[in-house]
Amino acid sequence: MSVGTIYGVGLGPGDPELMSVRADRLVRAARHVAYFRKAGLAGRARAIVEGMLRPDAREHPMEYPVTTEIALTDPRYNETLSAFYASATAHLRTLAEAGEDVVVLCEGDPFFYGSFMHLQVRLKAHVPVEVVPAVTGMSAAWTATGQPVTWGDDALTVLAGTLPEADLARRMAQADALVVMKIGRNLGRVRRALETAGKAERALLVEYASMGDQRVTPLAQVEATAVPYFSIVIVHGQGRRP
Amino acid sequence: MSVGTIYGVGLGPGDPELMSVRADRLVRAARHVAYFRKAGLAGRARAIVEGMLRPDAREHPMEYPVTTEIALTDPRYNETLSAFYASATAHLRTLAEAGEDVVVLCEGDPFFYGSFMHLQVRLKAHVPVEVVPAVTGMSAAWTATGQPVTWGDDALTVLAGTLPEADLARRMAQADALVVMKIGRNLGRVRRALETAGKAERALLVEYASMGDQRVTPLAQVEATAVPYFSIVIVHGQGRRP
Repeated sequence: MSVGTIYGVGLGPGDPELMSVRADRLVRAARHVAYFRKAGLAGRARAIVEGMLRPDAREHPMEYPVTTEIALTDPRYNETLSAFYASATAHLRTLAEAGEDVVVLCEGDPFFYGSFMHLQVRLKAHVPVEVVPAVTGMSAAWTATGQPVTWGDDALTVLAGTLPEADLARRMAQADALVVMKIGRNLGRVRRALETAGKAERALLVEYASMGDQRVTPLAQVEATAVPYFSIVIVHGQGRRP
Repeated sequence: MSVGTIYGVGLGPGDPELMSVRADRLVRAARHVAYFRKAGLAGRARAIVEGMLRPDAREHPMEYPVTTEIALTDPRYNETLSAFYASATAHLRTLAEAGEDVVVLCEGDPFFYGSFMHLQVRLKAHVPVEVVPAVTGMSAAWTATGQPVTWGDDALTVLAGTLPEADLARRMAQADALVVMKIGRNLGRVRRALETAGKAERALLVEYASMGDQRVTPLAQVEATAVPYFSIVIVHGQGRRP
């Protein structure tokens, strides 16, 4: 019996039509489908493929033991997640060693701010792992704004909204084109950092990029203090344009 | 008669299977297909869709009047390209105003370092323009390395290899995860800047990402002084990993 392959399949930003041809094919053919989700919720990755799975596909939800209940800086955060990833890895490895291929559904691009990497790094020495890249959430976000994110030789800086405010402000000030991911409950800090960096007036908030409820709003007009976690802030570059 | 739509369709990094389902559908259905190319060459974007076009599709190549023959800093570079984009825009606008949809083939993602943006900015006030985001060349490049480009809250910096060496070195030194696009004949300058920034030893050169001749080489082992233009350098982030 041959060993199965674990496929980390990027699903893109949310619109199923933005899945790659390869991802679409792998998802529709999969006998085993695994995905992360928060306990009690359906899971965003699973929602993207609704209606696409084989009727006999076996589903393997992997439920985060913690998301925002423990601070990132608390050592228990890493310990708890590390045990969770080890357990999820063991489950997938057992399937692969029994000869089964498994498609792991990944929002966005698997190697760009996601959870799949924590499985891949633990699995790759033991069973075959293949990664299918995908349209990133940030590509969908800048496309939603109707303007290119970079012009000419603009440098692009991508930041996580979870960074400390001073780090955000310093890096924002040096950026040409700027993307801030993981906005969610970090909106206030991101906004203050943008103001310090002199970029708040040009910032756009993109919610639900590529999906039916996609919305683009100048950040200055956003009154909410928290927005969906996957919201993205874009500040366009101003480089050379012939 | 209704006005046609100009579709800026991202084709992704080169592997046709990495085109989105939407891009695949638009390309296969298109009656008019436009694409940039260097005079005398088939064109990289056109090559990606080889075998996919309708037999009766009309092709509209748009040939760059200049690529590297004039320096970017010479005012004639912008003047020549500006006239070229105006002429290409006029052609596409005429088609749309005659009721025809046109699919413009774009390598990578149309709003991230490409030529389509120069058409979109000129067309959008006159005829409907839609952009289909795509897998970027850099996603394919970091996927090719077999490692995630970012860990935890790593910031990602994306630079064009065409920047001056001092700018490259300064921005590289501040980066967590780093991508350098447009390597080509800029390889020597990029290498020296990486050395100044203390990142040369960890740099990987990715050529032809996602394509049959894909190759990943530690930059320190690359002896060539020039590589394909679309080659990408990756320096992985070193952030938190549970």
